[in-house]
Amino acid sequence: MQLGMIGLGRMGANIVRRVVNDGHECVVYDHNPDAVKALAGDARITGVSSLRELRDNLAAPRVVWVMVPAGDITTGVIDELATTLESGDIVIDGGNSYYRDDMRHAKTLSDKGIHLLDCGTSGGVWGRDRGYCLMIGGDQEAFKHAEPIFASVAPGVAAAPRTPGRDGEIAQSEQGYLHCGPCGAGHFVKMVHNGIEYGMMAALAEGLNILRNADIGTRIEKGDAETAPLTNPEYYQYNIDIPEVTELWRRGSVIESWLLDLTAIALHESPTLTEFSGRVSDSGEGRWTAIAAIDEGVPAPVLTSALYSRFASRRLDEFADKALSAMRKQFGGHDEKPGA
Amino acid sequence: MQLGMIGLGRMGANIVRRVVNDGHECVVYDHNPDAVKALAGDARITGVSSLRELRDNLAAPRVVWVMVPAGDITTGVIDELATTLESGDIVIDGGNSYYRDDMRHAKTLSDKGIHLLDCGTSGGVWGRDRGYCLMIGGDQEAFKHAEPIFASVAPGVAAAPRTPGRDGEIAQSEQGYLHCGPCGAGHFVKMVHNGIEYGMMAALAEGLNILRNADIGTRIEKGDAETAPLTNPEYYQYNIDIPEVTELWRRGSVIESWLLDLTAIALHESPTLTEFSGRVSDSGEGRWTAIAAIDEGVPAPVLTSALYSRFASRRLDEFADKALSAMRKQFGGHDEKPGA
Amino acid sequence: MQLGMIGLGRMGANIVRRVVNDGHECVVYDHNPDAVKALAGDARITGVSSLRELRDNLAAPRVVWVMVPAGDITTGVIDELATTLESGDIVIDGGNSYYRDDMRHAKTLSDKGIHLLDCGTSGGVWGRDRGYCLMIGGDQEAFKHAEPIFASVAPGVAAAPRTPGRDGEIAQSEQGYLHCGPCGAGHFVKMVHNGIEYGMMAALAEGLNILRNADIGTRIEKGDAETAPLTNPEYYQYNIDIPEVTELWRRGSVIESWLLDLTAIALHESPTLTEFSGRVSDSGEGRWTAIAAIDEGVPAPVLTSALYSRFASRRLDEFADKALSAMRKQFGGHDEKPGA
Amino acid sequence: MQLGMIGLGRMGANIVRRVVNDGHECVVYDHNPDAVKALAGDARITGVSSLRELRDNLAAPRVVWVMVPAGDITTGVIDELATTLESGDIVIDGGNSYYRDDMRHAKTLSDKGIHLLDCGTSGGVWGRDRGYCLMIGGDQEAFKHAEPIFASVAPGVAAAPRTPGRDGEIAQSEQGYLHCGPCGAGHFVKMVHNGIEYGMMAALAEGLNILRNADIGTRIEKGDAETAPLTNPEYYQYNIDIPEVTELWRRGSVIESWLLDLTAIALHESPTLTEFSGRVSDSGEGRWTAIAAIDEGVPAPVLTSALYSRFASRRLDEFADKALSAMRKQFGGHDEKPGA
Repeated sequence: MQLGMIGLGRMGANIVRRVVNDGHECVVYDHNPDAVKALAGDARITGVSSLRELRDNLAAPRVVWVMVPAGDITTGVIDELATTLESGDIVIDGGNSYYRDDMRHAKTLSDKGIHLLDCGTSGGVWGRDRGYCLMIGGDQEAFKHAEPIFASVAPGVAAAPRTPGRDGEIAQSEQGYLHCGPCGAGHFVKMVHNGIEYGMMAALAEGLNILRNADIGTRIEKGDAETAPLTNPEYYQYNIDIPEVTELWRRGSVIESWLLDLTAIALHESPTLTEFSGRVSDSGEGRWTAIAAIDEGVPAPVLTSALYSRFASRRLDEFADKALSAMRKQFGGHDEKPGA
Repeated sequence: MQLGMIGLGRMGANIVRRVVNDGHECVVYDHNPDAVKALAGDARITGVSSLRELRDNLAAPRVVWVMVPAGDITTGVIDELATTLESGDIVIDGGNSYYRDDMRHAKTLSDKGIHLLDCGTSGGVWGRDRGYCLMIGGDQEAFKHAEPIFASVAPGVAAAPRTPGRDGEIAQSEQGYLHCGPCGAGHFVKMVHNGIEYGMMAALAEGLNILRNADIGTRIEKGDAETAPLTNPEYYQYNIDIPEVTELWRRGSVIESWLLDLTAIALHESPTLTEFSGRVSDSGEGRWTAIAAIDEGVPAPVLTSALYSRFASRRLDEFADKALSAMRKQFGGHDEKPGA
Repeated sequence: MQLGMIGLGRMGANIVRRVVNDGHECVVYDHNPDAVKALAGDARITGVSSLRELRDNLAAPRVVWVMVPAGDITTGVIDELATTLESGDIVIDGGNSYYRDDMRHAKTLSDKGIHLLDCGTSGGVWGRDRGYCLMIGGDQEAFKHAEPIFASVAPGVAAAPRTPGRDGEIAQSEQGYLHCGPCGAGHFVKMVHNGIEYGMMAALAEGLNILRNADIGTRIEKGDAETAPLTNPEYYQYNIDIPEVTELWRRGSVIESWLLDLTAIALHESPTLTEFSGRVSDSGEGRWTAIAAIDEGVPAPVLTSALYSRFASRRLDEFADKALSAMRKQFGGHDEKPGA
Repeated sequence: MQLGMIGLGRMGANIVRRVVNDGHECVVYDHNPDAVKALAGDARITGVSSLRELRDNLAAPRVVWVMVPAGDITTGVIDELATTLESGDIVIDGGNSYYRDDMRHAKTLSDKGIHLLDCGTSGGVWGRDRGYCLMIGGDQEAFKHAEPIFASVAPGVAAAPRTPGRDGEIAQSEQGYLHCGPCGAGHFVKMVHNGIEYGMMAALAEGLNILRNADIGTRIEKGDAETAPLTNPEYYQYNIDIPEVTELWRRGSVIESWLLDLTAIALHESPTLTEFSGRVSDSGEGRWTAIAAIDEGVPAPVLTSALYSRFASRRLDEFADKALSAMRKQFGGHDEKPGA
């Protein structure tokens, strides 16, 4: 079948490649003509220079995948598609949109009879080879129409051993894509996926930091009245080879995971990670997950702590820390210590 | 070579099987004679009924693996081995000992010229097939002598694809075992491994709970002056099929992990987990990891939150909660709400 | 001057009493006629039975204080006032409204030329005697007009010693009320106040729980392979008299606070707090504060932990805990322990 | 009666002044002769130049207060007193000792028939005027003998209104000192006090930081694919006058507290706290409180978060943050952003 793709960044371009490799045709557009040209030369790919042209090169009912930054840019594309596409067409938002925006976008499109499928897409730069894990929300019929595309983009059942007990027909989920529910359900599940990702990443990172400082008994100086002394320096005399430990854990341990695999790669390349400053960005889903937990009234201390650690890595706690130092100065006459 | 095994519980027995399957001989002991009998019938396994007999069936220098509960029981066995074994022999503590106890045990044994290797062992009930991930501390020479045993117990390099960039000789870590440093280093690394495990588990569990309550907008009643109303019930109308979502994430997502595989198994077997009450035990390493973070002065909010959630699952926060209700009653006249 | 009061619950009625005691007149309304009658007999208080009658008993420009539950009820009253009052009148929302609702309400009213002042009101059941701490947002001129009322409701400068360095004219803030900024600023500051309140309360409650369990070394049984043993029971042999400790801390300690005073009262009345179940409600501000921190990108681990503990006190973490038990069962064959 | 004081730092000297002002005599020693001289000129104070001389100037049974830094220095003084004092004498450790050290010190002293009272002392630089809150552990009879000294050092009942319901004889706790239990109980209670202090301080500091960033909607730039955009900048347009808000909360609010009073002083002196860098020290009790919670198996997320925030303020999370950036680079190709 045919797919229209809007947005040919790393992920958009890789999705196009997976789709055509699986036998489909793509009509592709990007606001940057060079990105369109970069995909030229494949007979199954047609580059276009406007959304109108994209529409005209696709047979109705069209399936158009939008893969542009979430927020205002996605909204802009959706708005334009609402006036360009035709009733019965299907728009897939594959970006990192907030599921609440999907609801708004779906309304914009449905006023014109156009369907929106929201599609959370996980896989990062590795997805071209590994396939992308797809979490989809929206109208069931529209989903069914677009399903062959999702099947091409997803990793397929062979990507992991089947779960014991699952031995009959292969489910959607086992192929790496899932219709999760009505509009927004896909991005909701993707949001929580990323929230979990933040938590798992922080768990690993905190653990490595504890290993890294297992030699603190060899480094720390005596405490004074205002600094906690290390009570038992004899227990912290280890120089742990962290790259080897992460490699070790990849086989047979309980924490085997893709994030661990990636960490082992990173530490093999750069054992002390000196090229990083440690300012960790966050791209929305971690925040939205915490807000969902709060709205639902369920505790999410691990996911939220992971988020807050990222904020702290960017020194956004500065005024709070100054206030603490000011209080200590007031009640105890404690001056800040340069290296404390 | 020969291995003596003390403790034939699930893990001890499975390690024996892996060792003899790889061509070694085992002399095995358990305080429960039935556990010894259960391993009979294999010509490479010799059951014995005392530590003295175990010693007499092994050629010096002996390698004796202790696989019994950590704490007093391990200490008792170590003490007995100190008076039973001979100078030059090697004791492997494969249990979940606190690394600080290793230091004490090593002293007990070294007074008799006996070496202690502390060996953190990960893999659980699946280790017999998957192999165990081994984190080892202690004297380098003793480690070298016992290395063939560790190689048999570990998963081996084929258990995971080699990390990109690692293409020469296969390192210890790639085979699934690692000499991490001097006495205690093995259990220190295992302790942190379990700390990370707690954090990853909690990240998954919290995320699933958020999915589970994604329908709260269909359930929640109006708030009153003392209960937070759900501001936007229209955003929480999803009935997510959680078993299918965990299956989905196993292919192509960033959170691919063995813990996710296991969660998918558990949820496929029991989608609502009704047979569990939600009282979650902890077995020491999570606590010790948090204490290590505190001693080192490094933040571990995710790992510690995961630990505290387990405490809270057992209602150990009860007096604190009552104190909160008492304060609310005092300043606001608020009564507790039965179902709030 | 005159004040109209809508909502004669505990706080509304007490505010009326403070206002008339300070020489003003009140026209009061409640949807429950008994609440109106309860204030009868004071010549300075006029009870009315409708908002229209309330309007007719006040001279323009009117000042009308709304003290009803936040959310739909407040919105309903605001909507009715928009059609009842006249241009130039001033509405004070003294309830626990979300500051974002203030913005909406202000729009509703300003379309009719009516001003909204949002007024966060702290003080609880003690406010009648102590005075209420008032955090006010909205138009500066409207605030100036209503200021005598705020001054009557607030505690006044004598309620606390003047801060060293403040020796000139008495500032608003020193009298216990403050114009914090434009529309919503009052409830924003009140929201953060309550967020801090949650954190302080939890700090106290957690500390008391640690004291309460300082005798755990006398109670705990030996651990087994799946339960963490208490390494050093000799360090936890204390039976602390918690009511006396809270009384003690009221004099000379760093944690002297009104919340501590209240805790000491509660524990003096009921040393073990057995009449409480420990299900702790939350009424919105704690959630909104955490959401504000997330939106702003600043870490608030303490305030958010305090909120999540309240959720956990109501067992809203149940599915997460079950998932943890299920994972432990899968990888380690661990069964849940009834009393673990 | 007579008191010997060892250690004439800020707190030791101020305690001496309170004791003599209440009619007792003091014999004082410090390893720095200038500190001894600084107290000269008061007929009730006798300066000495050795512990032996201190002993000789006190009538048996002696009461000797040790007010030196906790840890090795206190241990050194205790050891020397064990060989200098006589059976029946009483040593008060008024410093910030770990209660576990008290147990060791008590043993050292009791071998010579000398009693140890451990005395947690709160009050900081303000204690001279306010009095010190004293939490005391050890032998009941020794406590009774030294009680007049404690009564002189403590604030006395007038320091706070009596708790409603307490109207008979004035309890110890109401005078600001309390015998909390056997050896170590005093410092245990003080430890938890400081843990609560950390939590309360952090609650305030986090709240102020949220107020500080209430203008973020006026500052933040558009997000991109890797940075979370602020969804609703219109909700974050406030410039809050934080010094005035802290002053405001001192009267009538639920969070009235001494820490708030001090914060108001600090912010009145320096509204933006620019002279602080925000590196916040910790002096042991916060760590020990968290460890006690972990040992007891009770959750203390607020107290521990407060501790970890201090660690993070000193950038001790650096390797963890780098590991996060490294993982993001691996799976998403994300580069760190200089100002993100």
